[in-house]
Amino acid sequence: MAIEVDYRFPPSVDAQRQAKIIAVGQTVGTWDARFAHKEGSLRSHLADVLSVETEPTGYSVATIRFPLANVENDIPSLLTMIFGKYSMAGAAKVIEVRLPENYGLCPKFGITGIRQQLGVFNRPLVMAIFKPALGLSAKDHAAIFSEVAYAGLDIIKDDEIMADLDSAPTSERLQACREVIETVKQDTGRTVLYAVNVTGNAAKLLQKARNLVSAGANALLLNVFAYGFSVLEALASDPEINVPIFIHPASAGAICASPDYGYAYSVMLGTMMGYAGADAVLYPAHYGNLPFAAEEEAKIRDALRERNVLPVPSAGIHPGVVSRALADYGKDVVLNAGTGIMDHPDSPAAGVKAFFEALERVAEDKSFDLESLPEGALKSAIQKWGVF
Amino acid sequence: MAIEVDYRFPPSVDAQRQAKIIAVGQTVGTWDARFAHKEGSLRSHLADVLSVETEPTGYSVATIRFPLANVENDIPSLLTMIFGKYSMAGAAKVIEVRLPENYGLCPKFGITGIRQQLGVFNRPLVMAIFKPALGLSAKDHAAIFSEVAYAGLDIIKDDEIMADLDSAPTSERLQACREVIETVKQDTGRTVLYAVNVTGNAAKLLQKARNLVSAGANALLLNVFAYGFSVLEALASDPEINVPIFIHPASAGAICASPDYGYAYSVMLGTMMGYAGADAVLYPAHYGNLPFAAEEEAKIRDALRERNVLPVPSAGIHPGVVSRALADYGKDVVLNAGTGIMDHPDSPAAGVKAFFEALERVAEDKSFDLESLPEGALKSAIQKWGVF
Repeated sequence: MAIEVDYRFPPSVDAQRQAKIIAVGQTVGTWDARFAHKEGSLRSHLADVLSVETEPTGYSVATIRFPLANVENDIPSLLTMIFGKYSMAGAAKVIEVRLPENYGLCPKFGITGIRQQLGVFNRPLVMAIFKPALGLSAKDHAAIFSEVAYAGLDIIKDDEIMADLDSAPTSERLQACREVIETVKQDTGRTVLYAVNVTGNAAKLLQKARNLVSAGANALLLNVFAYGFSVLEALASDPEINVPIFIHPASAGAICASPDYGYAYSVMLGTMMGYAGADAVLYPAHYGNLPFAAEEEAKIRDALRERNVLPVPSAGIHPGVVSRALADYGKDVVLNAGTGIMDHPDSPAAGVKAFFEALERVAEDKSFDLESLPEGALKSAIQKWGVF
Repeated sequence: MAIEVDYRFPPSVDAQRQAKIIAVGQTVGTWDARFAHKEGSLRSHLADVLSVETEPTGYSVATIRFPLANVENDIPSLLTMIFGKYSMAGAAKVIEVRLPENYGLCPKFGITGIRQQLGVFNRPLVMAIFKPALGLSAKDHAAIFSEVAYAGLDIIKDDEIMADLDSAPTSERLQACREVIETVKQDTGRTVLYAVNVTGNAAKLLQKARNLVSAGANALLLNVFAYGFSVLEALASDPEINVPIFIHPASAGAICASPDYGYAYSVMLGTMMGYAGADAVLYPAHYGNLPFAAEEEAKIRDALRERNVLPVPSAGIHPGVVSRALADYGKDVVLNAGTGIMDHPDSPAAGVKAFFEALERVAEDKSFDLESLPEGALKSAIQKWGVF
């Protein structure tokens, strides 16, 4: 099997012509009589235009098939081929990429591996984000973590903005939080994951990740669009990085939000992640606080699951969306909340409890109407955030 | 000095409101009474909205100042802060970023260093791209390189699509081309640079770059948007990588081409490159074959030169644009041609000679009208490509 890419062009564009330009210009380019003796070798690298179809909207979709021999079985060489120079050629959006099953990397952990780490197999996972994002010390982080971990949380992550700052060095944050992980394990037998943000230039980042893991980090967080797919692939290929890698979508909007340029969100946050070695991927939920199409979210979910990658719909998640999220996702999903846990009217611990109460209520098929809710964490949450 | 960012919003957006959302949401987030004791620490990380101005077009520009303490003095943590999660919040484009002079990295070579390597100080540099992009063997590359190098070429680069393929391993390409570099040096005393494309996952890429340099590579090429700014910064910070790094803009359009989303080309191909350690940067020339605004090109030129980075306007460059390019750039520029050299009607060597004839003609203030041109390489080129 080869690589197939669907490009969508607005009505003003001559899609037939552009498809041919892509098939030639993004592969061999042209050649003249001087290279007649290399004809076979040159032809083997050319792409084919499989189809160009115009939709009722006037938009056209061109499907182009690229030879596997042109790329290194990774994401960066793929991106350079399918939408490198051509990305600067005018209005065009890559809306789907189909790769052979054995292309690229698989997650080391993914849905099954993360569930095994946690020992949780039959319900959605509950995840929190440290808030406020900046300004807290390692000790502050540990205090917050301890509170939510004892309340039953499965996973916590750094805010994506939290870098390795003088005011809050990553190694200190890990050290303080690792103690919480150990204490919770001793006291309750439960494993709690902390996805620590890895940053720095690629050489330092890779070394830092190894150091963090050997110092007890049990998950990593990477802003892949800021640091690069090649960094994710290096982490995912590194035998010393024997912990799951959580991916944050920071900057994805710069590549995906425009209707007629760049890549579809589902290509970047779904397909590419599934072949780059990500274990869990965060992306906006369409019932969250970022504008996001339900259709794209569903495509991301399916693309991730097809590769055993854990879907983490995020941004504006609170207990009032749990019923809806479970209807969309079933159990293989992470309910990931920042303020939806940390800003619970009673406490962050109540924030976590509210999610578990909501999960129980969905399991028992009970209403989320305020009148029907017993006093407690869930009711306080619904009073604050409502029900979606 | 802090970091200042200009965001442009279309008329439909409440820019005042969005500016406040960015200043808080892309830094600390909100906090409540529980964090009253951390007030000072939290406040020190907040960004300020400096101004929000609406233009006659209805577009608004908000200027926001971010604390340096929030980032790691590098590009990835900067991108995550200024347009990470917020990039997914709706229509908004980052049109300018102003950084303190001592932010990030400076080029190791840049304009002055590359001129010293070449021993060429008083004229534009002439650069070629291997074509066809794929399908040639190492021996083919060496034969082409030898021809153009003896014709006077300063620099050659791999096509950005040329990865480390089974059919054409990078190390073999380098070995064959290094012999050309050495022979030309022995025969003519001239140095010719070959920017070899470095690829692979970040760990392999960094090791490959060191191996290539120790095997005689005298320049590197990096598709920074595919591999990541963190990879460029690692290369630029590595004392073993004592050769200039040429940056290709492949994929830049996915981030920059949309009118209302992503980043301005001048921010990504100018400002960011100037602070990430790039030595020379390729980008579309507005008189080339990609749609590109003259104003953006001028901004890129100026942003690069301010940091001693060599500007390489590209894509559709041929001898007929030399006069115009020199008017725009003066001498500190690279005239970089792919087909504009390789597809010269007579030969690639004639393609190089045509550029030098064009440079002489501009220096002597002579016309490029076909009738006035003597028979030779330049005339053949102008007959084929015309004068811009």
